Amino acid sequence: MVPYLEAERSSSDSSSRPPPRVAQVQFFLDKSSDFRDVRVNLATGTVADEARLTGKHSFLDSEQMDASESACLADPQVQEVIKKLELPEDAVVCVEPWTYGTDGMHDMAQLIVMCYLYMRLGDHGDANHYAYPLDICVEMADGVRVIGIFCLPSGEGDRMRPTSEGVKKFDRRKIHRSSEYHPDLGPERRTTTKPYRVVQPDGPSFKTERNLLMWEKWRMRVGFNYREGLTLHDITYDGRSVFYRLSLSEMFVPYGDSRAPYPRKAAFDLGSNGAGINANNLKLGCDCLGSIKYFDFYHHTTSGEALKFPNAICCHEIDDGILWKHTNYRTGNAVVTRSRILVLQTIITVGNYEYIFAFHFTQDAAINYEVRATGILSTSPIDIGDSVPYGTIVAPGVLAPYHQHLFCLRIDPAIDGHANSLMVEESVPMALDDPRTHNPFSIGYTTQQTIIDTETHLDTNPSANRVFKIINEAVTNSATGTPVGYKLVPHTSQMLLAHPSSIHAGRAEFAAHALWVTRYSDREVYAAGEHTMQSFGGDGLASWIAKRVDSSSSSSSSSSTTTATGDDTTDHNKPSTENASSSSSVRNKDIVLWHTFGTTHNPRAEDWPIMPAEKMLVSLKPVNFFERNPALDVAVSRQEDNCSVLV
Amino acid sequence: MVPYLEAERSSSDSSSRPPPRVAQVQFFLDKSSDFRDVRVNLATGTVADEARLTGKHSFLDSEQMDASESACLADPQVQEVIKKLELPEDAVVCVEPWTYGTDGMHDMAQLIVMCYLYMRLGDHGDANHYAYPLDICVEMADGVRVIGIFCLPSGEGDRMRPTSEGVKKFDRRKIHRSSEYHPDLGPERRTTTKPYRVVQPDGPSFKTERNLLMWEKWRMRVGFNYREGLTLHDITYDGRSVFYRLSLSEMFVPYGDSRAPYPRKAAFDLGSNGAGINANNLKLGCDCLGSIKYFDFYHHTTSGEALKFPNAICCHEIDDGILWKHTNYRTGNAVVTRSRILVLQTIITVGNYEYIFAFHFTQDAAINYEVRATGILSTSPIDIGDSVPYGTIVAPGVLAPYHQHLFCLRIDPAIDGHANSLMVEESVPMALDDPRTHNPFSIGYTTQQTIIDTETHLDTNPSANRVFKIINEAVTNSATGTPVGYKLVPHTSQMLLAHPSSIHAGRAEFAAHALWVTRYSDREVYAAGEHTMQSFGGDGLASWIAKRVDSSSSSSSSSSTTTATGDDTTDHNKPSTENASSSSSVRNKDIVLWHTFGTTHNPRAEDWPIMPAEKMLVSLKPVNFFERNPALDVAVSRQEDNCSVLV
Repeated sequence: MVPYLEAERSSSDSSSRPPPRVAQVQFFLDKSSDFRDVRVNLATGTVADEARLTGKHSFLDSEQMDASESACLADPQVQEVIKKLELPEDAVVCVEPWTYGTDGMHDMAQLIVMCYLYMRLGDHGDANHYAYPLDICVEMADGVRVIGIFCLPSGEGDRMRPTSEGVKKFDRRKIHRSSEYHPDLGPERRTTTKPYRVVQPDGPSFKTERNLLMWEKWRMRVGFNYREGLTLHDITYDGRSVFYRLSLSEMFVPYGDSRAPYPRKAAFDLGSNGAGINANNLKLGCDCLGSIKYFDFYHHTTSGEALKFPNAICCHEIDDGILWKHTNYRTGNAVVTRSRILVLQTIITVGNYEYIFAFHFTQDAAINYEVRATGILSTSPIDIGDSVPYGTIVAPGVLAPYHQHLFCLRIDPAIDGHANSLMVEESVPMALDDPRTHNPFSIGYTTQQTIIDTETHLDTNPSANRVFKIINEAVTNSATGTPVGYKLVPHTSQMLLAHPSSIHAGRAEFAAHALWVTRYSDREVYAAGEHTMQSFGGDGLASWIAKRVDSSSSSSSSSSTTTATGDDTTDHNKPSTENASSSSSVRNKDIVLWHTFGTTHNPRAEDWPIMPAEKMLVSLKPVNFFERNPALDVAVSRQEDNCSVLV
Repeated sequence: MVPYLEAERSSSDSSSRPPPRVAQVQFFLDKSSDFRDVRVNLATGTVADEARLTGKHSFLDSEQMDASESACLADPQVQEVIKKLELPEDAVVCVEPWTYGTDGMHDMAQLIVMCYLYMRLGDHGDANHYAYPLDICVEMADGVRVIGIFCLPSGEGDRMRPTSEGVKKFDRRKIHRSSEYHPDLGPERRTTTKPYRVVQPDGPSFKTERNLLMWEKWRMRVGFNYREGLTLHDITYDGRSVFYRLSLSEMFVPYGDSRAPYPRKAAFDLGSNGAGINANNLKLGCDCLGSIKYFDFYHHTTSGEALKFPNAICCHEIDDGILWKHTNYRTGNAVVTRSRILVLQTIITVGNYEYIFAFHFTQDAAINYEVRATGILSTSPIDIGDSVPYGTIVAPGVLAPYHQHLFCLRIDPAIDGHANSLMVEESVPMALDDPRTHNPFSIGYTTQQTIIDTETHLDTNPSANRVFKIINEAVTNSATGTPVGYKLVPHTSQMLLAHPSSIHAGRAEFAAHALWVTRYSDREVYAAGEHTMQSFGGDGLASWIAKRVDSSSSSSSSSSTTTATGDDTTDHNKPSTENASSSSSVRNKDIVLWHTFGTTHNPRAEDWPIMPAEKMLVSLKPVNFFERNPALDVAVSRQEDNCSVLV
């Protein structure tokens, strides 16, 4: 692929041809549980590779979700139990089907779907059923066959039990009117917010040509697939390669309620649901402002027909305030530029929650990845008067359990080429009493740099100003004399709270550490493994690395590091040779970084009945990649162009 | 003040009168060094209080800076040294006067100004002189009298020495053309960025009446003074009190180069320079877009005349993308609201650097404090071929030394009243083998809460999801059953790198820890003390706290904490009584929080010749303050209002 892309970019070599297209197809043979993966060469129409995925499960798509929902509601036993709840007359029971997070109670080969029961009140289809979590959950084998009906626990000492042991009647004191978000039902809307429009009289500053996108000095290919949703490829700035591929690799949402069945609420929203197939059809003038270009994408139905996802990505510009400014106090002259940002945004709905994923490209050559979590909290029932230490009561009878959202961003760099290294830099005080150090005022500080030699995981450390630099040791910045690079500015957050011995930790290996570096491999794209549905662990980042350490020779698997305190023009330009032959060597190699970040979400009352977006931000910024500010040539900001209005 | 504000807000009690106005005036008596502070009762025209500030220095204002600059250039010895440099013919020597950061070498009573010499080339007054740092610095006593002229060090082993020992000629290989930022001089401007306008056809959503500002459900008073610049007062949301006062309290910018004279580069930009008097006159359509309201402010000249600072604050709205969204996958209906933000922004220029300070008010009742650092790096000379471990070479002969920017935001809360407490909350895994804990799947987690009893400092801990909640223990949220509160979402960053024994650490006590909590005191507004100019330490947050601990009885000064694991409806509602009489008790008291944050700025080539803004963000968010999402009533986003354009 790499030579083709280079030729295609330079467009001088029109003879270059793309590598043959290969389609990956996963299917159930004859609707059986014989789950297979084939690779089809589209040029020759032949199957290049076929594998039986024994013991693996497919993701759950919306057709299967709907089937589970219908089967659950149609089941006579479930209907019997619902009758015993004695719900209000205008109640409509709703089923929330959930992928089954392996908990050790059902370590079976068959597919399980968990159905949680809710109700909404009245005729309006958008009444908020999360406001009325019922006491009932249903286990469905193969997604459609009821194998268990249970009462959910309420207070801390309460436990799940079969409904055959008795069902509590619905407590009508739980009925309330304050949990609606839909404008037809919710509170009267405020009218104080005056209209605000973005006007771009000459149109947007970007150009597109199929999936090719060009904006300011950026050029990239926009991709999309059923699993990862938005992906970006072959990203260059001013003709220089920076990233080969950027994608959300996986996300994990485990709930902190330790009582069965809640440990099963542990969703891999990409691997088990799919970010792409759950993408919203974005709406002009609602999800973004200004001049908007939408990208459509195609997937297929379960029966194989083409399925269009219109407006799955929106592409637009935003103004982000001041990019740079200086006022020369001697002359009184101010020079100010404004920051224009290109946004590529996709929004997914996974049941109750919405995630807004956006790559922001800046004029000063940074890429920011912004995640916003919004939507509705997944709620559990709780009796009035009860409380638990792992959830917030947000309305009468409505428990919003504590949970985490852990994302893993896959960063495949190509900083001036594919042979890159990861350097970890910290800012450290200079020694006080070292005769080799001149620090007479005890205020000196410098940096300590370590180049990572072998595949490993790392943690963030803001108190040491730990910076992760992706560098190309073979290319030196002529201004600074140091290797060119980009730094990852992580979103520092709490990692997985589930115990390392838990099934959660085994299944979501990536969630244990903030940063992982691996050698590039075609088949390593998903941080928790390709098949997350009812996975048992042993697949994913830590396992891949461990396997390669095991298989490499016993001679040099430990990480030998180079520490350069101070003059960073010398030591780290010396390429590592020791581990060059090791399969897990990551120095001057085609490497991949994986950044785990997220939020520990202990709900607030303010997150109910719909959650104001919580933002997370990861940045990739040039660090001595350019010889000077790449946005130095941005035109100065002028009232003639901006036409602001004095109040 | 409090009863007056409450009466004024309710406006029912028209008989309430403001407290008498008192002006604080600091001056030098008869131009002597007899520095005094008086408080003048403006109603009676009498001096209420007068103090001689023996051993203290005033801040340096621009008049004094200009005087130092002129005196330095006019000095025959300095002129002699400049001649010896043999500068290019079109060179214009520029002087950068710096406040003197005490370093133990000149612990004298007299005022010292350090003058660093630069040159610009050519006629253009905005040519970038920071591109040509000269080898010379000058010590000026009382700001105007030369007492020493020195050659600056170049390489790591080099040391400052008097120019009498010889002066190096200017190395003409340093002349280069790539360090200009002014559009007349810099690179050709890119023309690819198309116009982008914010149009508000019905005007802005805010209303002002003198210094009273109302927007959406927010109401506040806007203040400004020579030292802190922008301050906010008596902030309410929907009629409920949240903050009494918000202000930047101090900032400290120490440089990491340990060689004399650079340890003196350690600026308190508020206490020694003044954020207010260095505020930019903001320009319509350049510094912000849309419908802009400016606030002017008045200070006075050194001779006592009124001095207007026009357009010192701009007030405008921005669109911040999606506020909340949910798509009901059953009906296909999406409900989306956009986030409108009110911005109050001020920009200061302190010599080479610009700081953009902005308070952002959101519709969901959060206040974000955003700081952007931009402007030009303060540079030092370095010989071609040399390097040092505490700086980046950004152009030939131009060293950009490592340094830190440490800000201290003062937060005076009034969460539903003035008696507030600080609760520290962490998210912690539940025990595995504790028979009292039901955690059979090893995945449970809960929160651990500690209420702070006495004045102290705290650190951030993102890996434990440490959250700082300002709560009112006397007011319970009816939905959650827990005390109402706001949380501080800190900007986690590296604290001061200078050694705790250093003069820097003594002078900038606030820079040692991310959070401090103190009992409110009228005279404690500035985190590093009132007089930072050539301060010796012993004033500021740590000293205030230590003094009160010393003076309180020996019985109960230690911090007794209440830990409530789990059910947060119980323990922390029990007010602390033990320390109620201690002057340093901060539980259910009128408390003040101080948040230290910043950036360790090891310059990149990309920060030169002008630095793309680096952003820092601190948030204050309601946490169980409201019974539900306060932005639930925001009108849904509609194309009819937004008029976006399909590309």
